[in-house]
Amino acid sequence: MTYCIGMLLGQGLVLLSDSRTNAGLDHINTFRKMTVWEKPGDRVLVLLTAGNLAISQAIVNVLNERAASMEGEPNLLNAPNLFEAAIRVGEAVREVHQRDADALKEFGVEFNASLILAGQIAGEAPRLFQIYSAGNFIEATHDTPYFQIGESKYGKPIIDRVIKPGISLDEAAKCALISMDSTLRSNLSVGLPLDLVFIRRDAMKVDRHVSIDADHPYFAMIRCRWSEALRGAFHDLPNPEW
Amino acid sequence: MTYCIGMLLGQGLVLLSDSRTNAGLDHINTFRKMTVWEKPGDRVLVLLTAGNLAISQAIVNVLNERAASMEGEPNLLNAPNLFEAAIRVGEAVREVHQRDADALKEFGVEFNASLILAGQIAGEAPRLFQIYSAGNFIEATHDTPYFQIGESKYGKPIIDRVIKPGISLDEAAKCALISMDSTLRSNLSVGLPLDLVFIRRDAMKVDRHVSIDADHPYFAMIRCRWSEALRGAFHDLPNPEW
Repeated sequence: MTYCIGMLLGQGLVLLSDSRTNAGLDHINTFRKMTVWEKPGDRVLVLLTAGNLAISQAIVNVLNERAASMEGEPNLLNAPNLFEAAIRVGEAVREVHQRDADALKEFGVEFNASLILAGQIAGEAPRLFQIYSAGNFIEATHDTPYFQIGESKYGKPIIDRVIKPGISLDEAAKCALISMDSTLRSNLSVGLPLDLVFIRRDAMKVDRHVSIDADHPYFAMIRCRWSEALRGAFHDLPNPEW
Repeated sequence: MTYCIGMLLGQGLVLLSDSRTNAGLDHINTFRKMTVWEKPGDRVLVLLTAGNLAISQAIVNVLNERAASMEGEPNLLNAPNLFEAAIRVGEAVREVHQRDADALKEFGVEFNASLILAGQIAGEAPRLFQIYSAGNFIEATHDTPYFQIGESKYGKPIIDRVIKPGISLDEAAKCALISMDSTLRSNLSVGLPLDLVFIRRDAMKVDRHVSIDADHPYFAMIRCRWSEALRGAFHDLPNPEW
């Protein structure tokens, strides 16, 4: 499994992914789940993937091949807007489905892919989409300004309480890292290193990419102090008197 | 769905269950998920159930019928110890499986049942078991003194950080209620009222049963102050400086 979060804020986008992939507990590997397409000044797109790694990699490959092909072909680098880019990612998902789904089924493997597409294309605001195995997708709104894919439940309570479109990118990153910490603690199939990306509104490029491993001082501080803070908050609440 | 927790502590057992059951979002009902068998002074057993409600109710019915039948038949009221009681619950699960699984399969419904059995039988310490759809089961230990069934992920991080066998029953109840609150907030398919049961070690009876609805003052306080405490803890942590 994996855990990825995308947040859409007034100031821009924050994206966080882990890098654990596994096929049984004796076969745990580290693969990045984040792919970036950038044409500075014109567009920046980030794709986060969860689910079967072979499927995720195949989808990214199809998208890369298209982007490298002739200018005239529809691809992520010439999509006129992010909605159209999401359609093109959905088409790549369907292409891989058509190629692999039957063969996978014969081995009892379900075709599952779950993706987050985020970014900004010149002429419109930053946007955030979640794309499903069927190639269809939904877009984040002011009321639901975030998407999670993969092992999303452990880390959802803190996001539900904190994320509003008005918070800063740094606060959103802090929340994403706390959410990731809760997931790492409760689920073995999510693991370091993490990729954290900031896309500032109208910068049209990745503003900052931080690779976070176990020695990263800020994340180490979060891991230690958030546990303490939770235990402190727990002890501050009175016990029941029945 | 549902969410139930069982905790095994030095002082005894704490059990908490919600009461939401649904078949599609337009058909949400309230059914208790907790069944108690008590022979004061000799034994107390509590069963929590998650999964398909028809299956859960059928299992409880089989167990009740056996308990009401002739003294000589093996049932929960004459099991010599809790391990044997868990075997008898597992047998009931298998009996319902044999009766219903094929018919359910024809309608594309998987046979799923997930149960927690907790209690104490005279002559041994309190024990806690988790029983699976196949009728097999595992027992809680000093290292893992709790089980969750149903929508367990949202509420796991706080339990992972707080529950140790040495904490008091009241502290464990507070932790269970916080865990339930996180689940209620993030998942519509878990709902009030809650059943909270305390079994004090060697009391050989239910020490206290509390039915908790939206007006319950302690739970209302938890809901309000835990959110505040989380947000406070979040704001107390410094933002990243990259």
